[in-house]
Amino acid sequence: MSRRTLKLGAILLGAGGPGQHHTWLDPDVAADASVDVHWYIARAREAEAAKFDLVFIVDSQFITPDSPNHYLSRLEPLTLLSAIAVHTTHIGLVGTATTSYNEPFNLARRLYSLDHISGGRAGWNVVTSGDAGTAGNYSRDEHYDYPTRYSRALEHVRVSQGLWDSYEADAFPRDKESKVFFDRTKQHALNHRGEFFQVVGPLNLERSRQGQPVIFQAGDSEDGRDLGAAIADAIFTHAATLEQARAFRTELRRRAAEKGRDPENVLIMPGIFPIVADTDDEARARETEILGAKSFDKALAELGRPFGWHDFRQYDLDAPFPDVDPGSSFRTQAEGIARHAREHGLTLRQVVQRQLDAGRSPFVGSPLTVATEIQRWFDGGGFDGVSISVNSPREFARFTDQVVPILRERGVVREEYEADTLRGNLGLPLPENRHTAARRTPEPVR
Amino acid sequence: MSRRTLKLGAILLGAGGPGQHHTWLDPDVAADASVDVHWYIARAREAEAAKFDLVFIVDSQFITPDSPNHYLSRLEPLTLLSAIAVHTTHIGLVGTATTSYNEPFNLARRLYSLDHISGGRAGWNVVTSGDAGTAGNYSRDEHYDYPTRYSRALEHVRVSQGLWDSYEADAFPRDKESKVFFDRTKQHALNHRGEFFQVVGPLNLERSRQGQPVIFQAGDSEDGRDLGAAIADAIFTHAATLEQARAFRTELRRRAAEKGRDPENVLIMPGIFPIVADTDDEARARETEILGAKSFDKALAELGRPFGWHDFRQYDLDAPFPDVDPGSSFRTQAEGIARHAREHGLTLRQVVQRQLDAGRSPFVGSPLTVATEIQRWFDGGGFDGVSISVNSPREFARFTDQVVPILRERGVVREEYEADTLRGNLGLPLPENRHTAARRTPEPVR
Repeated sequence: MSRRTLKLGAILLGAGGPGQHHTWLDPDVAADASVDVHWYIARAREAEAAKFDLVFIVDSQFITPDSPNHYLSRLEPLTLLSAIAVHTTHIGLVGTATTSYNEPFNLARRLYSLDHISGGRAGWNVVTSGDAGTAGNYSRDEHYDYPTRYSRALEHVRVSQGLWDSYEADAFPRDKESKVFFDRTKQHALNHRGEFFQVVGPLNLERSRQGQPVIFQAGDSEDGRDLGAAIADAIFTHAATLEQARAFRTELRRRAAEKGRDPENVLIMPGIFPIVADTDDEARARETEILGAKSFDKALAELGRPFGWHDFRQYDLDAPFPDVDPGSSFRTQAEGIARHAREHGLTLRQVVQRQLDAGRSPFVGSPLTVATEIQRWFDGGGFDGVSISVNSPREFARFTDQVVPILRERGVVREEYEADTLRGNLGLPLPENRHTAARRTPEPVR
Repeated sequence: MSRRTLKLGAILLGAGGPGQHHTWLDPDVAADASVDVHWYIARAREAEAAKFDLVFIVDSQFITPDSPNHYLSRLEPLTLLSAIAVHTTHIGLVGTATTSYNEPFNLARRLYSLDHISGGRAGWNVVTSGDAGTAGNYSRDEHYDYPTRYSRALEHVRVSQGLWDSYEADAFPRDKESKVFFDRTKQHALNHRGEFFQVVGPLNLERSRQGQPVIFQAGDSEDGRDLGAAIADAIFTHAATLEQARAFRTELRRRAAEKGRDPENVLIMPGIFPIVADTDDEARARETEILGAKSFDKALAELGRPFGWHDFRQYDLDAPFPDVDPGSSFRTQAEGIARHAREHGLTLRQVVQRQLDAGRSPFVGSPLTVATEIQRWFDGGGFDGVSISVNSPREFARFTDQVVPILRERGVVREEYEADTLRGNLGLPLPENRHTAARRTPEPVR
């Protein structure tokens, strides 16, 4: 088989996620985008016209008055994606949902319902809820600790996949002539009894066109990478340089192979923030403008998030970066920030400035420059696809109308959708129902 | 104010609910309706064209191979209603969701997301999960007992309503000129600590156009009626005769008044199953045909459901109705069946036959006959609205195209939508945010 084309995802960020304090002020950005279903539908249709593989809706559930604009008030991912599903036909629909504060039966059901509503285009970005404060919204005094969050996530996904196999593909003949609606031998209870969950099943939803929703994952810690290698069909990540990206991809593929999986079926799709203008100079000027528009005060408040919303405003900005417990929220990120500050002897002000500069993108320039750089990373083994952050329809159109055609001409991205399921377009195999498989091989099902 | 018009709801039952073993065989009924989002969208648009107030999606989560066809495999209500929302403009969207096996933060958020996606047309049918087997899908050894289910439901609704008041209506100026996105004084945590739930909040979703989703409720037990009187804006029920219907409505209005509520804001909307044909004779013949098409064997299996899926196939059909524990599933219904059998000395076969006949409708006849009977019940205080079960597009069209116009000509139902929110069309007041109210009156908020 020839190598897959570069996969394209659009992260629809409404009025602006962390570090994007400025985006809503852009005359081209609808200030209420985060709660406007029609804004999302319009962006998804644009992405579909450009033959993107998927749109991606991120999520979190704990807010304070200092949360990023988009977090303060936004639509819930799976209800939103259902609405997008019936105004699109081919693009994949990926939503974040937490394994820490959902019951597998409820969540697996909603994801599978979306998979049916979209005709087999659903994807699940499996997360464990970073914000420790989330516990307080779910009748718990304390957030789950790191190892518990990740073991629970693994079991949650396994239970969900078991529930999605409740019915074999031919369980519902619905034959009016013979009056056979249902073949009761093709319905299977799960009878799961594990460390975190007991789930009898069966799920009350028949097999979907792609069999199982596609699993995405994004954790970057040791536990996160291990979970991704075990369960993920695709992995979201960050990538500052081609070398970093290649190292991450190589490591994840190795880990997946060690778990007995085909690394070809683990797609690495880092988020990138391309800044495209008519010339390289104009694009660099635009980048400077974007970085300058960010608010130091908001960045100072948001710096608290990885540290469990610790309030950094209490410290002297020009003293060394304070010694703050990284906690259990986004531990890897908090530890990374603190370690870098310590190693480089940075002040709090310098750390905040570094966060402001973090929007600096390796993909800045004319359409030709950006397309060439993306192709270089793709050919260099840096990623299997990219996930583009979308706030401004104008900026997104620059990418879809000017960069994508160059990549298409070079054969890097597809001409046309190969399939109308997400698995089909990502080039992933359709999973066989475990009970159907067991019928062919006379060994007992575990 | 003049009396409200008769409210109209359409219960979209896909391939057929309990007792509707035959409906999927009708050439006019899509056998896969229960999992076909486009089937639901088409019916909702028909209902909207007829100026119905709402569509209603029922739900349950525990199945066995003997469950009704529609229950075996169906879409999840809130994902489904989101998809319907973006293909309709005025009709209300009411979904069943259980308080027994959902966390209030998750469910309140999804309902409110639907409320935003639909522009203020969401309704929540509050249930406590009848099927005892549901517990096994949610890591619990035992189903909650009756009193616990209802106390939990009351607290769940109160928490949800508290979360929906997280933001005052003017919390998001989003003024690009003054660069004010958000007024942090208008965001309010809930800090709820109750018997069943602790929820800090705030919910990450701003105020919707109708303020709060409309609350529906259907429990018929003592506990159920008490809950309905306390929380419901509208109540689903059954009604075999006008006298029964009037007694139920009178009682619920009295209970609501006792709780300090205006009984005008508690709408009683029983489910009815009109059978309409060109003449009364043809309609009665059609009724006989429908009753005859039902399957005795399936009715025998389904009889187990109110008794916690007790298997009645083990008994002699012609012996007296067996003495079976009504359990904690649908206790009121099970007790009612057993009591009636005992009082009338019925055999098991007679009880099953009575269940088969239960589809017998007081609303059978020509369009004129059915319209006149509905008006008689409405004028006689039997109900504030009716909820029509929809399987067959042809039968539904008979109602919308032939019965509704007669009711409209008589001024019983509306000419045009009065509003584009569900509250507005039901004639219910828009609730004021509690924190906004507290600003006007200087007493402390509880």
